[in-house]
Amino acid sequence: MLTSQGEDFPRWYQDVLNKAELADNGPVRGTMVIRPYAYALWEHMQAAVDARIKAAGAENVYLPLLIPQSYLEREAEHVEGFSPELAVVTHAGGKDLTEPAVVRPTSETVFGELMAKWVQSHRDLPMRLNQWANVVRWEMRPRIFLRTSEFLWQEGHTAHATSDEAGAFARRIHLDVYRDFLENMLAIPVLVGVKTERERFAGAVTTMTCEAMMGDGKALQMATSHELGQNFARAFDINYTDASGRSRACWTTSWGSSTRMIGGLIMAHGDDQGLRLPPRIAPVQVVVIAVKDDDPTVTAASTLADSLAAAGIRARLDARTDQGFGRRTTEWELKGVPLRLEIGPRDLERGECTLVRRDTKQKFSVGAESVVATIRELLDAIHTEMFTAARDRLGRRTTDATTSAGALDASATGFVRIPWNVLGEHGERQLNARGVTVRCLQASDGGLPDVETPSEELMAIVGRSY
Amino acid sequence: MLTSQGEDFPRWYQDVLNKAELADNGPVRGTMVIRPYAYALWEHMQAAVDARIKAAGAENVYLPLLIPQSYLEREAEHVEGFSPELAVVTHAGGKDLTEPAVVRPTSETVFGELMAKWVQSHRDLPMRLNQWANVVRWEMRPRIFLRTSEFLWQEGHTAHATSDEAGAFARRIHLDVYRDFLENMLAIPVLVGVKTERERFAGAVTTMTCEAMMGDGKALQMATSHELGQNFARAFDINYTDASGRSRACWTTSWGSSTRMIGGLIMAHGDDQGLRLPPRIAPVQVVVIAVKDDDPTVTAASTLADSLAAAGIRARLDARTDQGFGRRTTEWELKGVPLRLEIGPRDLERGECTLVRRDTKQKFSVGAESVVATIRELLDAIHTEMFTAARDRLGRRTTDATTSAGALDASATGFVRIPWNVLGEHGERQLNARGVTVRCLQASDGGLPDVETPSEELMAIVGRSY
Repeated sequence: MLTSQGEDFPRWYQDVLNKAELADNGPVRGTMVIRPYAYALWEHMQAAVDARIKAAGAENVYLPLLIPQSYLEREAEHVEGFSPELAVVTHAGGKDLTEPAVVRPTSETVFGELMAKWVQSHRDLPMRLNQWANVVRWEMRPRIFLRTSEFLWQEGHTAHATSDEAGAFARRIHLDVYRDFLENMLAIPVLVGVKTERERFAGAVTTMTCEAMMGDGKALQMATSHELGQNFARAFDINYTDASGRSRACWTTSWGSSTRMIGGLIMAHGDDQGLRLPPRIAPVQVVVIAVKDDDPTVTAASTLADSLAAAGIRARLDARTDQGFGRRTTEWELKGVPLRLEIGPRDLERGECTLVRRDTKQKFSVGAESVVATIRELLDAIHTEMFTAARDRLGRRTTDATTSAGALDASATGFVRIPWNVLGEHGERQLNARGVTVRCLQASDGGLPDVETPSEELMAIVGRSY
Repeated sequence: MLTSQGEDFPRWYQDVLNKAELADNGPVRGTMVIRPYAYALWEHMQAAVDARIKAAGAENVYLPLLIPQSYLEREAEHVEGFSPELAVVTHAGGKDLTEPAVVRPTSETVFGELMAKWVQSHRDLPMRLNQWANVVRWEMRPRIFLRTSEFLWQEGHTAHATSDEAGAFARRIHLDVYRDFLENMLAIPVLVGVKTERERFAGAVTTMTCEAMMGDGKALQMATSHELGQNFARAFDINYTDASGRSRACWTTSWGSSTRMIGGLIMAHGDDQGLRLPPRIAPVQVVVIAVKDDDPTVTAASTLADSLAAAGIRARLDARTDQGFGRRTTEWELKGVPLRLEIGPRDLERGECTLVRRDTKQKFSVGAESVVATIRELLDAIHTEMFTAARDRLGRRTTDATTSAGALDASATGFVRIPWNVLGEHGERQLNARGVTVRCLQASDGGLPDVETPSEELMAIVGRSY
């Protein structure tokens, strides 16, 4: 049914998108249609990220889609990075515009202009804003969820009175929002680290990243957070008057995550049967399947689905008994529903039902009276075991290298750890020429380095990436 | 501080937008920046509408922002209605596009194309889809939230096997989603009715509307729902194979609501001191104000705010004791927070605090032990009383007329009810020429007419509108 991962991983990915009814290509090249099942997944992801962003003290805003072209010229580095990707509105309201308007590739410049206006005194700080929106960056080699000409994302922008405060806030977002979400909701272990100068976001002083390993051993950047020093504030005149009446430039941060995480979720956990969704984010946690078309079976399945829903479990009833049982279980496997609860006439006689785990395919018989409690425990266990399995794979497929050449070889199958002072910028350029990048630099204990980490203690994580 | 409503209602509206920090103009003419407080309001509105849409059985999707220009030419009536409003991307990815792409004014045509593909058999029906997204319609006379070149909205599109089912579903959305939300969450009584042929959506067989009365007696359309018969399905080839194997055109509906509802909320409930937010939708339901800067007061206020939050009440602490008390209460009045809870040293001594209602400005002393229960009751009472007050105003400012000339005169101060067979299409055109429109047609009992309502029993509701 699906191309196997071993045979052709990119084709397997495309097959999953189609057959699990996740997404289609849009009519304009490079755009995508997010279908109900994948959109429900995104809604759960968005809610979980949003709650963490709000807990960190940021508030949501909505800024306009269209940006005057002149705004993008304000920050030279900025326009250089984006101009080949821009979509430009030249005609509107029945006539040509005197100034073309760009469809936002990010709202960064508008945040800059507005924060310059909204920040006046030290009392206005910290200013912590976030936006959920669509952005457009023209893609020559689109791949759904990973690189599309339009995608959905959140971008946060904050202004602070001191460098320390900005740094601490960016780290908080990176660890307590992104890493926590990726590990504790998506069950994807991530490497947190900083980008090298070559990979750093234009204008950033530090770019932090969460790097995940996909099923084929390649890396996917799942989220990034930037400390912008005073660069951004200087470009946009984001100044505040301190307690003594002196005007000072703010210290700013920005940070983002996008629908690309859906692609990461598919590729990190999927197997040859399709998606495997971690329970905390799955739109349907348990599908209750009425095996046969007799009334008592369908009634029992329906009652069970209701009692699961009443217990706060996201359950769906599948009573499509006009379709073959095998076909239905294959479909729910494809859609990655963590638990399948099957009820047939024989189960009913015995006062039991059958539970099947999607992640391990294990089957259990459970007495009707303990179904809810068992499911709760299993959903927790599945999360933990999926996370552990992904972490074990990450460990297994990460090797140590002591030379650039060794790093290049080893990157064919996974990640490579190599001391940054061994690799260096020269080695990085050599790897880049072969399609391999430094995903991040970590402290020697695998943690996020800080300004005080000596460069000779940095480890580079090297890999091929999406 | 604010222009009074009586002096200049549109200027009062603009003042509220600025001073309550709700929204700003965007840099491209006609666009808007939704600031945190208004966006929080929108998030609560969106969550409440979305929950109702899902309860009606619809699923969310996301379709691309950019639409090939040729798509809009498919439905002749459609393009005629929209073309002067379109924003067109002619340049992207560093070069001119071979086919220009339109920034969606709605996703209707893309829904049409996709539903034609996704609907095959009667088993695929009903197909009930909804999208939350931004849309762009160039505005020559923009007014924030009411008419902006970009706005946020939801649009639902459904396909059904029969006319009856489509009709019933559209009515369900109109009454159980929109009317229920507007009345039970926003505390805004609405007139539900159908549009005249002249006001009907292009291509619709029936357009239902929820019309609300603003503080100045003018009408604002808050949401609309359309039965499209088979017109839309025929234009887009949305066909299904019935149980006997015959191909049939579907019956479709569409329905939408937008950030315009924020404007309606401001104008329906606001007064000369600013916003008045109904409690169920207010981002902050209770603000707890520490009156003085002494430790016991601030501690007591903070503890109280925490205990309200723990009780599921949206409470915020205002401990900005470096700012004057009067200034702070004025600000919370301006922001329309339903209840103010004031704690000063004297209150503490007495084991009391002071509650002030925003809607009526009534003050109460409440013993500390019963604060949570009292607030719960008050929030319910405020909702009911705000709704009742708005309904009374609607009744008071709706007059009956027996001639077109009488209807025109009476429409200067509010709504007018006149039999449709007295007014007729000729009378409607005369009113239109004077800036007055038929807002909707109702059954004689004030209900939503159906296909069986005889036209001589229809009452026209006439008014000036935004």
